[in-house]
Amino acid sequence: MDAREPVLIEGRWQASQDAQGHFRAYDPTRAVESGPAFAISGARDVEAALASACAAADALAACDPERIADFLSAYALGIEHAAAELVALAHAETALPLQPRLAQVELPRTTGQLRQAARAVRERSWTQPVIDTAAGLRSHLAPLRKPVLVFGPNNFPFAFNAVSGSDFACAIAARNPVIAKVHPSHPATSRRLAEIAHRALIETGLPTGSLQVLYHLDPELGLRLAGDARLGALAFTGSRNAGLALKAAADAAGVPAYLELSSINPVFLLEGALRERGDGLAQEFFASCTMGAGQFCTNPGVVVVPHGEAGDRFVAAAAERFEQAPAGVLFSQGVRDHFLAAIEAWRAAGARNLGGGASAQGEGYRVQPALLTVEAAEFIADARLRGEAFGPASLIVRVDGFDEAVRVAQALEGNLTGTIYANDEENADWIRLADALRPRVGRLIDGRMPTGVAVSAAMNHGGPFPSTGHPGFTSVGIPAAIRRFAALHCYDNVRDAALPPELRDHTSGVLARCIDGRWTTDDIGASV
Amino acid sequence: MDAREPVLIEGRWQASQDAQGHFRAYDPTRAVESGPAFAISGARDVEAALASACAAADALAACDPERIADFLSAYALGIEHAAAELVALAHAETALPLQPRLAQVELPRTTGQLRQAARAVRERSWTQPVIDTAAGLRSHLAPLRKPVLVFGPNNFPFAFNAVSGSDFACAIAARNPVIAKVHPSHPATSRRLAEIAHRALIETGLPTGSLQVLYHLDPELGLRLAGDARLGALAFTGSRNAGLALKAAADAAGVPAYLELSSINPVFLLEGALRERGDGLAQEFFASCTMGAGQFCTNPGVVVVPHGEAGDRFVAAAAERFEQAPAGVLFSQGVRDHFLAAIEAWRAAGARNLGGGASAQGEGYRVQPALLTVEAAEFIADARLRGEAFGPASLIVRVDGFDEAVRVAQALEGNLTGTIYANDEENADWIRLADALRPRVGRLIDGRMPTGVAVSAAMNHGGPFPSTGHPGFTSVGIPAAIRRFAALHCYDNVRDAALPPELRDHTSGVLARCIDGRWTTDDIGASV
Repeated sequence: MDAREPVLIEGRWQASQDAQGHFRAYDPTRAVESGPAFAISGARDVEAALASACAAADALAACDPERIADFLSAYALGIEHAAAELVALAHAETALPLQPRLAQVELPRTTGQLRQAARAVRERSWTQPVIDTAAGLRSHLAPLRKPVLVFGPNNFPFAFNAVSGSDFACAIAARNPVIAKVHPSHPATSRRLAEIAHRALIETGLPTGSLQVLYHLDPELGLRLAGDARLGALAFTGSRNAGLALKAAADAAGVPAYLELSSINPVFLLEGALRERGDGLAQEFFASCTMGAGQFCTNPGVVVVPHGEAGDRFVAAAAERFEQAPAGVLFSQGVRDHFLAAIEAWRAAGARNLGGGASAQGEGYRVQPALLTVEAAEFIADARLRGEAFGPASLIVRVDGFDEAVRVAQALEGNLTGTIYANDEENADWIRLADALRPRVGRLIDGRMPTGVAVSAAMNHGGPFPSTGHPGFTSVGIPAAIRRFAALHCYDNVRDAALPPELRDHTSGVLARCIDGRWTTDDIGASV
Repeated sequence: MDAREPVLIEGRWQASQDAQGHFRAYDPTRAVESGPAFAISGARDVEAALASACAAADALAACDPERIADFLSAYALGIEHAAAELVALAHAETALPLQPRLAQVELPRTTGQLRQAARAVRERSWTQPVIDTAAGLRSHLAPLRKPVLVFGPNNFPFAFNAVSGSDFACAIAARNPVIAKVHPSHPATSRRLAEIAHRALIETGLPTGSLQVLYHLDPELGLRLAGDARLGALAFTGSRNAGLALKAAADAAGVPAYLELSSINPVFLLEGALRERGDGLAQEFFASCTMGAGQFCTNPGVVVVPHGEAGDRFVAAAAERFEQAPAGVLFSQGVRDHFLAAIEAWRAAGARNLGGGASAQGEGYRVQPALLTVEAAEFIADARLRGEAFGPASLIVRVDGFDEAVRVAQALEGNLTGTIYANDEENADWIRLADALRPRVGRLIDGRMPTGVAVSAAMNHGGPFPSTGHPGFTSVGIPAAIRRFAALHCYDNVRDAALPPELRDHTSGVLARCIDGRWTTDDIGASV
């Protein structure tokens, strides 16, 4: 069969101009191909997408923000109308649970995110207007006037999809076209989302070139695209190796690269917390580690537990749960291979099995969850033990006393999150350990598991290298995440009529601006 | 003579641990060495500086902001007390005019900048606190807890010096140690500034490792240092080639690099503006282009002038001034060689001489200012004509009508500034040309020359690649420039006592925070 699904380039659905082959999604529960055939795009598709996105950039930047907001809202509504179909497609391609994960959690999170972006577009506070009336200077964040290339990950078919997730919503909110390289493990879900987005673009009168969609690229071609100076920015969520290669390509071209790469999300359990509620913590940890077959960027991959009775009880309770856990279905052969190889690397470095086996199990990409353990000295000495195992596994690191827990923290690379559980008497230890963790994590968590990532203005889903490419930005949380896709624009002595609306003397009176050092919604020259 | 000036590493002035030779400053007016001998540091000095700065990072980050502010203020005062000596040293090493440039402009600008940084540290708004009380999330910008490596340029011995300029002030304001690689063309000025800074560190009780000073490095060693993952960030102002090499090294190590590289700062003169005040504009332009021998990042390197009578009159008036201009003294043999080579490249690409010769003149590093010209079609077709000539020269680009001016704008790379002069009847043209320039410049200027860079919260001394390394940041302007040296830190469900002061429920009541979507100085839980 040679009928392939069309790509979305040059503002319309069309057959790939130079397909280098085709592929299908896999049903992860059976490890067999399923669904229609999708093109692996060649250089002509890529060039057509890039040229079309570039051609749309000025018009999109010039759009009234109200229309951008209308698009984001219409897209959210369209997703809701197609919810049953989207959820079924995503379930078939990812094996993530229909309920609650896809239907009740991820899809509403995705539409909520699009609507938050719409509100931010209307409200404009992401532009951070700063005005110095005496110097005649006015600055704000503005569209890049270039496309943003988004690489979506395998693990959130809606909320991080390159055609519907946070990077997409934020790039569009900043009025930049998106070239979406969707993840090839869920092409049909992505295609359906892109159809809804494309229709919403047409309905709301935005340039149709604002969204280009490619399903699959040869890695070399992906690198060439990421290193094209016509891009305004690159956003990537995925594996460390792929992300670092893309970053190198983008860096060389002067293209800012925002990457979410890898994270082991250490969880520190202090003695008092374990004494007070070790059993509950074992359950909390197990649920967090195995939910969605552990395929979260913020999965608790390392748990630091003191030696002694309370720690032993926690470890035994957790191990029992892992031992009895049903197999989890991973997204793909590749994910399973990497997961098993990562566990093998832990074992080769001396990690012992505590519960479950992390072996392939039954049909499809099923694996047994696994809990392993090492001593702190081993963990600190061997970098292999600090590698990420993307999937339902965690490494218990046993420490002799609090000081060794601090040394474990000091041995960590950059992570998205770091968590400390302590009881009320352990305040001082919480603070001391937090001080060691703080420069090594983006989000420091007190007494809850890291896997929930709220879409909040105060969220940081980011962290120091190598968890991301830049410690100052988050990929989740509006309006902060929008600012990744903006350029700082200053107007010096510029006539009022030529200023963008948010920098004029008179605005709608709701936008907070920093005028002569004071945040205010007042107009300039207004009598207050 | 082998007595060399000490380097500042490991918290004290000491002889270089492994000098690879030594060098002296040159008197640019006579092209002869002058002043004491300074070490060219080897790998041991570099490692000692890096290790000492890393060791100071946690303590500096933990300092009460009031003490950081005290240091910045004390340093500013110390510079003022030594003003006569500093100005004399800088004059001897750079040949920049004592009056007004060094004494009345650059030194006060430098101390003003340090005091602005001190105010920002006390006021804390650079930390941008965002709080979501319902989700239990609190975020702000925080110290990197790693050193910032600053490479200072040759052209501002005070205001951009790696030991006293904006990068220094901002890195310290964000509570990060600085490793200053000062520019070897003004080592004695830098040494004296560093002495004052070092004494101020001691007097205000900050860690003495907060400032490390190296005078000169082999370029390979500089690249190795820039690519050390122990760094929190790199800040560089200088030439494009050196900056891109440092960026590549930093990028590979995941170190954010903030660079100011090169800029030709196009100035567009529209017909009406030329008719109204062409003669005045010729004088404004000439003064801006030759001030400080043209050695400004924002020097007007390209001036776009319509064919026709008004344009011809402007060009003739400007050419006459260049023809009669006294020679300007450049900073060094290297600057002069690069300047002459850049003019040669323009000539080889077809540029014709209008006035002055851009030849070496008389004693020292003197050169004759130069005005050259090409047609727009030539400028658009040949990238050599779009290269920067750092020094007192400018290229007049003649256009046939307004549309060709727009095409010239569209041919430009990223620049720090872009300027349009238009009269009141030319509003529509101003706006149309501005739209073409806008994505290509950081600061868009209406009817004044680009060389003044006010230290204002609303300034953008930045721009799209390759004028800088990232379009979202400015190197001048407080508090924005401070945010380059910060990490986004989120606190999730964290006990109040363990929060940093600006994120606690109760603050001093002056800091504006975004709480549940609203900017306010209120405490949390306060009855309003």
